[in-house]
Amino acid sequence: MRTLYHYNVSSASRRVRMALAEKGLPFELVLEKPWERSERLLRMDPAGEVPVLVEDDGTTVAGAAVLEYLEEVYPEPALLKGTAVQRAEIRRLVAWFAEKFEREVTDNLVGEKLIKRLSGQGHPHAVTIRAGLANIHYHLEYIAFLAERRTWLAGDAFSLADIAAGTQLSTVDYIDSVPWTDHLEAKDWYARIKSRPTFRPLLADVIPGVPPPRHYADLDF
Amino acid sequence: MRTLYHYNVSSASRRVRMALAEKGLPFELVLEKPWERSERLLRMDPAGEVPVLVEDDGTTVAGAAVLEYLEEVYPEPALLKGTAVQRAEIRRLVAWFAEKFEREVTDNLVGEKLIKRLSGQGHPHAVTIRAGLANIHYHLEYIAFLAERRTWLAGDAFSLADIAAGTQLSTVDYIDSVPWTDHLEAKDWYARIKSRPTFRPLLADVIPGVPPPRHYADLDF
Repeated sequence: MRTLYHYNVSSASRRVRMALAEKGLPFELVLEKPWERSERLLRMDPAGEVPVLVEDDGTTVAGAAVLEYLEEVYPEPALLKGTAVQRAEIRRLVAWFAEKFEREVTDNLVGEKLIKRLSGQGHPHAVTIRAGLANIHYHLEYIAFLAERRTWLAGDAFSLADIAAGTQLSTVDYIDSVPWTDHLEAKDWYARIKSRPTFRPLLADVIPGVPPPRHYADLDF
Repeated sequence: MRTLYHYNVSSASRRVRMALAEKGLPFELVLEKPWERSERLLRMDPAGEVPVLVEDDGTTVAGAAVLEYLEEVYPEPALLKGTAVQRAEIRRLVAWFAEKFEREVTDNLVGEKLIKRLSGQGHPHAVTIRAGLANIHYHLEYIAFLAERRTWLAGDAFSLADIAAGTQLSTVDYIDSVPWTDHLEAKDWYARIKSRPTFRPLLADVIPGVPPPRHYADLDF
C-alpha cells in the first residue's frame, strides 16, 4: 500500500495528503514526529523532514519534491494546469504559501504555541507570536485580493496554490489563530476549500489531548 | 531584451543566472537591492523578492517559479533530466540547497556579515554567525557524500542540483567563509562548477567597495 509518513499539523504533509486525495490515490498514513528525527525518517529523507511518500514498489520521494512528482506520475486531474506561464503562477503561489506564509505566520504561531509544547522544546515566545498574529492579516488580505479577481487563487482552475494556502490556514485554524471575522472574503474562499471532500480527512485528524476549536471542522464557521 | 532583475549576492538570483547561461539564453541584468523593496520590484513580484525574469514579450516570472518555467519553455539542454524519480531527486536537492542551506548557512553568514552592512540593518550577530560556521561543515560533508557516489550531485547528469549547491557556496565564498581545506572532496566538486564557462560571470561580479577574497574567482583555489 502507498504510504505517507507525515505529521498531522505539518503543512507540508497536509499539502501532499490533499493532493493525493484530489488525484484519487489511496494511501495509508504513518505518523512521524519530525522533532524526534527517527532513524526510519532519516533513512528515507536525509533532511529528516515530513512528508515522505513511499510507493508500492518502494519508490521513495521526500519533501518539497513530492507534489511535482505526483503531478508527473499521476497527471489527472491536473493540479498544475495550463501554459508554462499559468504553471509559473501556480508555483509562485505555492512558494508564497509553503515558504513565505510558513516562515511569517505558521512557524510563529503553530511552531510557538503547539509544536514547542508537543515536543517539549521550551515555552512559547510572546514576541514571535505577536509577529505571527500581525503577519497573518497581510496574508489573508492577499488571499482576498486574489480570490476577488480569480475563480481560484491562481486562475480559473483549482490548483496546488489553493491546496498550499488552504492547508497552511488549516494548521493555524487548529489553534484558533485565524482572525476570520476581519477577513470575510478570505473566509468565503476557505469555506470553498473546507467543503471539498478531499479536505475532510484533514479536518477530522485530531491530536490526542489537543482538541481544535469547535468551528474548526464546521463548514458553517 | 530578456531582463533579469537580480541582486548580485542573492543565491536565488545566481541560480537563475547560471541556468539561463547553461541554456544559452541571452539576458541583461538589472540590479535590485531587495531590502529597498522598490515599487518596480513589488509591481513585478508582490513578495518583493529577487530574481524576477521579464521576457521580450513582457511575460514576467518571479521567485522560485523561474527555474521550472525555464525548464518548460527552453527544455534543451535539460537541467531536470530523467524519469520522474530522477527529477524528484534533483528537486529534493534543489530544495535542500535553496532552502535548508540558505536557512542554516547563507542567511547566518552572508546575511549577518554582508547584507546587514550593505543595507544598514544593524550589526552582525555573533551567535548567528557561529551557528552558520558550524552548520556549513555538515553541508560540505553532504556534498562530499553525494559527489563520491555520483558523477554530479543528483546523478549522472549535471543538473539544477549542482547549480543550487554551487551558487549557494559562491555567495558564502564571496565573504571567505567556506572552510575548503577541511573538505577537499567538496572542494573538488566545486572546482568543476567553477570551471564551467556559465559560472564565470558570477565570479566576475563584484560589489563596489567589498572585494571578494583573492581565491574567489581563481580556478586553482
